[in-house]
This record gives sequence, structure tokens and C-alpha cells, in this order.
Amino acid sequence: MSSNASQLERLTFFSDAVFAIAITLLIIEVHVPHLETRDDGAYLQALQALQPSFFGFALSFLVIGALWVAHHRVFGMLVDYKPSIMWPNMLLLMTVAFMPFATALMSSNPLARVPEVVYAGTLLAAGLLQFVLFAMALRAPYVRSDIPAEHVTGTRWRALGLPVAALLSLVAACFAPGVNNVMLFGIPLFTRLFYALGQRRALRLQLAPVEG
Amino acid sequence: MSSNASQLERLTFFSDAVFAIAITLLIIEVHVPHLETRDDGAYLQALQALQPSFFGFALSFLVIGALWVAHHRVFGMLVDYKPSIMWPNMLLLMTVAFMPFATALMSSNPLARVPEVVYAGTLLAAGLLQFVLFAMALRAPYVRSDIPAEHVTGTRWRALGLPVAALLSLVAACFAPGVNNVMLFGIPLFTRLFYALGQRRALRLQLAPVEG
Amino acid sequence: MSSNASQLERLTFFSDAVFAIAITLLIIEVHVPHLETRDDGAYLQALQALQPSFFGFALSFLVIGALWVAHHRVFGMLVDYKPSIMWPNMLLLMTVAFMPFATALMSSNPLARVPEVVYAGTLLAAGLLQFVLFAMALRAPYVRSDIPAEHVTGTRWRALGLPVAALLSLVAACFAPGVNNVMLFGIPLFTRLFYALGQRRALRLQLAPVEG
Amino acid sequence: MSSNASQLERLTFFSDAVFAIAITLLIIEVHVPHLETRDDGAYLQALQALQPSFFGFALSFLVIGALWVAHHRVFGMLVDYKPSIMWPNMLLLMTVAFMPFATALMSSNPLARVPEVVYAGTLLAAGLLQFVLFAMALRAPYVRSDIPAEHVTGTRWRALGLPVAALLSLVAACFAPGVNNVMLFGIPLFTRLFYALGQRRALRLQLAPVEG
Repeated sequence: MSSNASQLERLTFFSDAVFAIAITLLIIEVHVPHLETRDDGAYLQALQALQPSFFGFALSFLVIGALWVAHHRVFGMLVDYKPSIMWPNMLLLMTVAFMPFATALMSSNPLARVPEVVYAGTLLAAGLLQFVLFAMALRAPYVRSDIPAEHVTGTRWRALGLPVAALLSLVAACFAPGVNNVMLFGIPLFTRLFYALGQRRALRLQLAPVEG
Repeated sequence: MSSNASQLERLTFFSDAVFAIAITLLIIEVHVPHLETRDDGAYLQALQALQPSFFGFALSFLVIGALWVAHHRVFGMLVDYKPSIMWPNMLLLMTVAFMPFATALMSSNPLARVPEVVYAGTLLAAGLLQFVLFAMALRAPYVRSDIPAEHVTGTRWRALGLPVAALLSLVAACFAPGVNNVMLFGIPLFTRLFYALGQRRALRLQLAPVEG
Repeated sequence: MSSNASQLERLTFFSDAVFAIAITLLIIEVHVPHLETRDDGAYLQALQALQPSFFGFALSFLVIGALWVAHHRVFGMLVDYKPSIMWPNMLLLMTVAFMPFATALMSSNPLARVPEVVYAGTLLAAGLLQFVLFAMALRAPYVRSDIPAEHVTGTRWRALGLPVAALLSLVAACFAPGVNNVMLFGIPLFTRLFYALGQRRALRLQLAPVEG
Repeated sequence: MSSNASQLERLTFFSDAVFAIAITLLIIEVHVPHLETRDDGAYLQALQALQPSFFGFALSFLVIGALWVAHHRVFGMLVDYKPSIMWPNMLLLMTVAFMPFATALMSSNPLARVPEVVYAGTLLAAGLLQFVLFAMALRAPYVRSDIPAEHVTGTRWRALGLPVAALLSLVAACFAPGVNNVMLFGIPLFTRLFYALGQRRALRLQLAPVEG
């Protein structure tokens, strides 16, 4: 294995580990009820009180999961990397590592405005850093040569899906805290939409010189 | 290394990390007694009170360990993967990451019904997701060509062992909470049984056209 | 890379992750003092009260570190593995994952007998499992062919160092709790001693047929 | 892959995992406020009270990140390793694993002298161990042959940046606790300075025999 490939591998490895730890630490913030009784009703009530925590756990698991899947997809397209992507990647990992806090804050009081704003803001920061990172990484000599240019552009555009959904969620949090998280279910839609837009634009630009 | 193999490696790597973190986090939920005295009797009593936590730690360690061993076995049979297995795998990891919570809940009151149902239900969800994942992954162009077809079928069937044992444990939890976990010791038996059934069926089907 | 080598790699990888998580989780059990004052004396006193926790952290970090170094050395000698080593390895990892609890228990009251016995007992279990695992793994077709037989035998014997030191510490814990941990500083000595004994025995046996 | 390369890979892997876990555990020490009210003002006040914790999280994330980036850079220059670097590496990892404690202590009372001294002292220990480790690792037969000698010397010198900044921060902590952390922002400057000094010195020494 070439030295650069091995260094790239170690960078993705370190990133994977941070994603995996943050995603698994989410459960630590869901506090286990300790009841003195064996009564079914008491337990069901205690679990129901934890509902916002369960929702927060599942939502953040899916969001961090999606961030990892995107990271996995993009870094799988690379053969090498520019050393300057190191710190944007580290800052992205910082927002991911911050997610267990933002999730627990949101779950502690799911209809309060400030926690929802913090949560959506963390996602917005993660989304913007991810967009910058992918735009820097997916550049000419670093991408595998067998990947069509329009797929590279589409993948770069696709990363707009998360920050746009997070921004909508942030704005909605000011008016309807709690409900605003519905916006995040638009992520799969937005990413596909932006991918298609980017790909189309790339294809048009490729054709342009031929047409001219 | 080919690009697909490297992407498969990173997927298994991320999964391994989540398994490893969830299995090691189990101990965090066993709360260390802080006694003012050095008296042997007081310590022995405090440790005895922790017995359900020790049992939960050991049981969940073995169950998550078994889930990892199965994941390791199946992914070792692959040369490539369908991108659509990504999310079933992520959901399986979510149930694994949830295990420390389910374990601590069960250990907090080992004879209460609801915690036992939650624990068995978590295992049932993990078992079903694992079955779906393996059934999707162990398909024609993705499996190593040197593996006999009946072994592939047997391995797919084998994954029925955990959900069946978990379902029995779930039903038993309603009648005899605490005792129901005995069902889980049937996992090694069930997996072997289903493996044999699947293998036999595959061999019969292979012979059928010859007989016809 | 051959399929077996890749499966062996994933097994060592999973083990590495559990070692790494357990060793890093040790610090979570050292509780951070929260003082209302900025007074130097109050802080120094609070840190001094934590001395047993710092000692426990450092001791367990070195012990788990030594267990990992030994695992790293032995698995580096292998080209393949017997599937039956999977579960002894998993049980060894269980004792490693238990270490943060045993450490916190010992640190909570460093002169009490029961916590010291639990700590030494955990190490004894880890040491015995490690010995069994290495004895099973370091067998004929699995070891790299360029490694001299006497080095293999020496490495197998070497694994007696930890259980012997842990047993001495366990016995000493009954009479002089707290002081008994001094025995553990004998681990580097014992491992070297047993390595030399095993190597010498292997060399004598190699010569025997020639002599006979 | 040669056996030594694979053992080196596993050593870097284990180190990466400890770095990744320590960096992600930082967030656990930031305690989530649980308010009964949904009032924006109450939440903003609670978050403002957490400001030192957020600062500590971000600072330590960047410092551990920088330690990992340096480790990644240096180990990427190696083809093999001296077994004797194992324990300096383990001690470096011990200081990294200690960082979540030192960070939480500092954040608990950011203007108190003792916590700042402990934090700066931990960084100083990490910096000195890193310097010793890199000086041992970057030796003749272990470094990739295509790397110019002056770059090797520069990289060795570069590792003086962190301990020097940590020492300045430690001294400043005695006079202006809290403010002293400003010194740490000098790390990027110091590392570049020492790199240039080391590189220049190496080039002068290379020319010396020719001149003589």
C-alpha cells in the first residue's frame, strides 16, 4: 500500500472511531429509572417519561449515522488527500462529539425553545463543516480517476442537504419548538434533490463547449 | 485492495467499533459502592446487592459478543456488498447501542415484568434486524465464490436462533419475569439447529433437479 | 490478503478496540471535585483525597496496557487462528471490560480487604484466561513458520507471569490489604523468568532426540 | 504486508482508538442542565454558566486533536519500529486518557490556580513524552528511506512546540490563572519555529563535512 493511501486510511479510521463512539455514547445520557416497586404501571409511567430521551437517542443515532454514511461514501471516492483537510475534518468531528450533549439538552425539555435552537444549530454547524470538507476533498488529483465528473459534482452538492434542513429546523424552532425536528426528516429528500441539481449542472457544463 | 473491498472493510470496521464500545460501556451502569467502613461484611453485602448488575453485565456481554461473532462470520464470507444493507446494519447497531440501557433497566429490578419485557424486546429487535441484514448480505454476487451454497443457506437460517430465543424469553417474561432469561441460554442450541435445517433444505433443493 | 488473515485481523481489531475503550474509561471513575472556592489549599486537599483513585488509574492503565502488549505480541506471531479461540478471547475481554469497576471499587477504599481481593481476583481471572488463550493460539499450523519453536514455547510460558503475580497479590490482600498491590510490580520480572524457563525447556526437548 | 508493518499498523491503530475515545469522552464531563421551566432566559443563563465547560471542551479537543495529528504525521514516516517505543507510547496515551479529568477540573472553576496548574502540567507531561517518543521513533533504520534527513530532524524538533507552550502556560498559571491558557494558542507558532530551527541545523550539519 502506498504511503499516502495508508495515511488516508488512518485519517478515515480515526474519524470512524469518533463517529462510532459519539453514536454509542448517546445512550449514556438516557438515565435508567430505579424504582422500588415491581408494579407494571409504575414502570410504564417511568418509561413514558423517558419518551423524549428515546426520541432524541433515535433521531441523533440516525443523524450521526447519516453523517458517517456520507463520510464513508466521500472518502471511498478518494485516492489521496490534501493535508489541509485535516482541520476541517477535526472540526466536523468536534460537532459530532458535541451531539450527545445537544441531544441530552433537547431531550431534557423537548418543548423549550433554547435547547431546540442549540440542537438545530449543532446540526447546522456539522452540515456546513461537512460541506466545506467535501468541497475541499473532492478535488482533481485526489479523486479516483474512474469516477465520472458529474457524480463528483453531484456528491459535492448533495452535502447541501443537511445544512439546509438544519437551517429550516433552526428557524422553525423559534416558532414551534419540538415540532421543528420534523424538518430533519426532509434530509433524505434534500440530499437527493441537491445531488440531482449538481449532477445536471455538471452535465450541462460538460456539454457547453461542444455546443459552443 | 479493490475499492469495494476497502469500503466493505470500513463498514465492518465501523460496526466493530460500535459493538466494542457498547460491550465495554456495559460496566459503566454497574454503580461502584462507596462505603465509609473497611468492614468485610459490609462490602460483601454491597457486592451481593449488585448481583443482578453482575448477572446483567455478563449476560449482555455474551449476547453482544455472540452478535459480533455472527457479524464477523457473515461479513467474512463477503467480497462485496449491496449499498442497501447500510441502513439495516445501522439499525442493528442502534439496538446494540441500546443494550447498555436495557441491561441497566433489567438489573435495577430483576424480578419486575416491564424491564424484562424491554430487555427481551430489544434482543428480539436485534435478532430480527440481524436476520434481515444477513439475508440481504448473503446473496449471489456478494458472497465469496469458494463457499458452498448449503453453507450460505445454513448461515442465513442460523440467524433465526436469536430472534426465536428472544421471542420465547419475551413470552416467558410475562409469566415468570427474571427466570425468563434462561431461554437465552438456548441460543447456541437454536442457532445450531436452524443451521442444520437450512443446510439440509439447501442440499435437498440442490439434488431435486437431478432427481426430477 | 487471504480470507483467514483478514478474519484474524478483524478479531485482533475488535480486541484492540475493547482494550482501548476499557483503558480510557478508567478515568471516568475518577470523580472531579467541584469546589466553591478558589483557595489553593482546598484544591490540594481535594486532589490529595483522590490519591487512591490516581494510583488505581495508573496501576490499571499499566496492567491493561501490559495485557494489550502481550496480546499484540502473540497475535503478531499468528498467520491464522482456530475458531475455538474466539470465546476464550471474548472472556478475556470481559475481564478487561470489568477492570474499570474493579479499579473504582479498590480506589474507593484502598485499605479494605474485599475490594483488594476483587481487584486481584479480576487480574487472576484475566491472567488465567490469557494463559489458556495463548496456549490455544500458539499451536502448530497457526504460528508463522519463521518463528523458532523455543520462542513460541517461551511466549506461552511467559503468560504465567500475570496469573502468578495476581495470585500472590490475592493471598497478600487477605493479610495486608492495599500493600498487596506491590506484588504486581513483579509482573515484568515474572514474565521474563517464565519466558526463560519455557525457552530452556523447549531447547532441552529439541536436543533430547539427538541425545537419545 | 510484512509482519513488522502489520505490527506497526496495530500499534498505531490502538493509539488512534485511545486518542479517539479520550477526545469524544470530553463531552461527558459537560453536565446537561435539567430545568423545570421552558423559559428562554433560564436556559440561556444555564448555558452561560456552562461557558467554562464549553471552552474546556473546545480547547482540549483541539489539543488532543493536535497530538493525534502529530502522531499521525510521525508514524506515517515509519516503516518499522523499535519495540522499546511501546512503553513511552503507552505513557503518552495515559496522559491523553487523563485529559478528560484535567479538563473537567479546570472547567469546574476556571480562575482557580491549582486546576490550571494540573491542566498545564498534564499537557507538559504529554508534550515531553511525545518529544521522547518521536525522538526514539524517528531513527535511522525505522524511517522511510525517501524522506529527506532535514525533514526528519525538523519533525523531531517540532515536537518541542507543545512542551514549551505548556511550560509557559504552567508558569503563567501561577500568576494569572485562567488567562494562562492563551499561551496554548502559541502552539502552532512554536511548532513551526522549532521545525524551521531543526531543519536549518540539519542542513548546516549536512554541509559541514563538505565545507571542512
